[in-house]
Amino acid sequence: MSERKLILVCNDDGITAPGIRALVAVAKEFGDVVVVAPDKPQSAMGHAITINATIRVNPVKVDGVIEYACSGTPVDCVKLAVNKILHRKPDLLVSGINHGSNASINVIYSGTMSAAMEGAMEQIPSIGFSLLDHSIDADFSAAQDVARILIAQALENEMPDRICLNVNIPNVSKELIKGIKVCRQAIANWEEEFEERKDPSGKPYFWLTGIFKNYDSGTDTDIWALENNYVSVVPCQFDITAHTTLNHFKSWEQHV
Amino acid sequence: MSERKLILVCNDDGITAPGIRALVAVAKEFGDVVVVAPDKPQSAMGHAITINATIRVNPVKVDGVIEYACSGTPVDCVKLAVNKILHRKPDLLVSGINHGSNASINVIYSGTMSAAMEGAMEQIPSIGFSLLDHSIDADFSAAQDVARILIAQALENEMPDRICLNVNIPNVSKELIKGIKVCRQAIANWEEEFEERKDPSGKPYFWLTGIFKNYDSGTDTDIWALENNYVSVVPCQFDITAHTTLNHFKSWEQHV
Repeated sequence: MSERKLILVCNDDGITAPGIRALVAVAKEFGDVVVVAPDKPQSAMGHAITINATIRVNPVKVDGVIEYACSGTPVDCVKLAVNKILHRKPDLLVSGINHGSNASINVIYSGTMSAAMEGAMEQIPSIGFSLLDHSIDADFSAAQDVARILIAQALENEMPDRICLNVNIPNVSKELIKGIKVCRQAIANWEEEFEERKDPSGKPYFWLTGIFKNYDSGTDTDIWALENNYVSVVPCQFDITAHTTLNHFKSWEQHV
Repeated sequence: MSERKLILVCNDDGITAPGIRALVAVAKEFGDVVVVAPDKPQSAMGHAITINATIRVNPVKVDGVIEYACSGTPVDCVKLAVNKILHRKPDLLVSGINHGSNASINVIYSGTMSAAMEGAMEQIPSIGFSLLDHSIDADFSAAQDVARILIAQALENEMPDRICLNVNIPNVSKELIKGIKVCRQAIANWEEEFEERKDPSGKPYFWLTGIFKNYDSGTDTDIWALENNYVSVVPCQFDITAHTTLNHFKSWEQHV
């Protein structure tokens, strides 16, 4: 008896976003799908969790199937799914398809990728997908083809322990995509420019805006891949120790 | 003319927390201090930023000096401080002193450390400090001694580019602290247990709780250091590429 695979789907754009529908459709080709996703947009939530407030989980029916809308962050969704809804680790966690890039430094801010990172922490094979198109009418068909290929790989092959994948898909038609490329995260940054406005009573408030700056000229980075019409795949880990600098700091050791 | 150093102080427990007062007192020994911190507790916010809402910054007077209470996350505070308040990069960013551990996997969830990470991204020498004591009456004096030593080191010596330090101080009296130890992040995890309760109308809601599980038997980790009464110092980076697995995934490259 071949056992059906159990696939958990999450995102950060919220349970009603077109991107998660596109991912659910592909995931269903591979097994039983359970959706646990935020009940509202949770973009740029990083690895936030809800510790000082309560969390609600509301079952909602989508296309005749029960899904779970969670009041918490993407990471809350993963924790709740494993602990309270599935009562076991799924065979695979997929997050997305995000509306917009999570390449390079965006991975640190991304709620989509924080869900995948949480999966990796819990030793669940996990992949986050993002399409470089913020539009509500974005065409997810190429991204779906990519998801189909990588979900098959992840279910058929062993994923290294405690690693997840950050997959970004360029915003071009499928014919122009040159292939899937394994990359490292480009060294880049956001240069902030806060836009200051006045409220009706004259008090200032701010909107965060910024310009993406790539400082990395490498041709092995995710940014290079995307600029050259490749799908970028970056394996990610949650050990953020800067191992190569441990020796540098040894001389700082002393008595207090 | 010797130029005075400019030190930015942030945290995630909020501008009124005792821990930030303890850190401000030490920072003032080294130069001009500007405090930009959340106007309410922002623990466990990870690297969240505010992109779908406005941000307020309110000047507040503390001990006769203007500080800035920000409605956003710790990362928002750093971005706003550099862009709108200081109008230049400070010579040092210190975050904390956090009430509770940010060792091991906690670094990923920590707002204190996300502020330090944001500093590293902006190429500001940055250190996050945490004391392993959640109590409102926590004694920060040993932590202050540690901060004094490490702030001096960071101002006198070069920090490697795009690296910040995650410093955790054990909750023991100063005489028992054996020294400062440079470590790697222990491989550990939180095993969640959501506590389910019913609201007055009978509907369920959840509180996130959990048990910290250390899977790492190494004696070079932050958890080992803290359990053996050392101060742990982990250099952290924001490149989360799992470089050692890039080869493993090369065989996944293909046409779409």
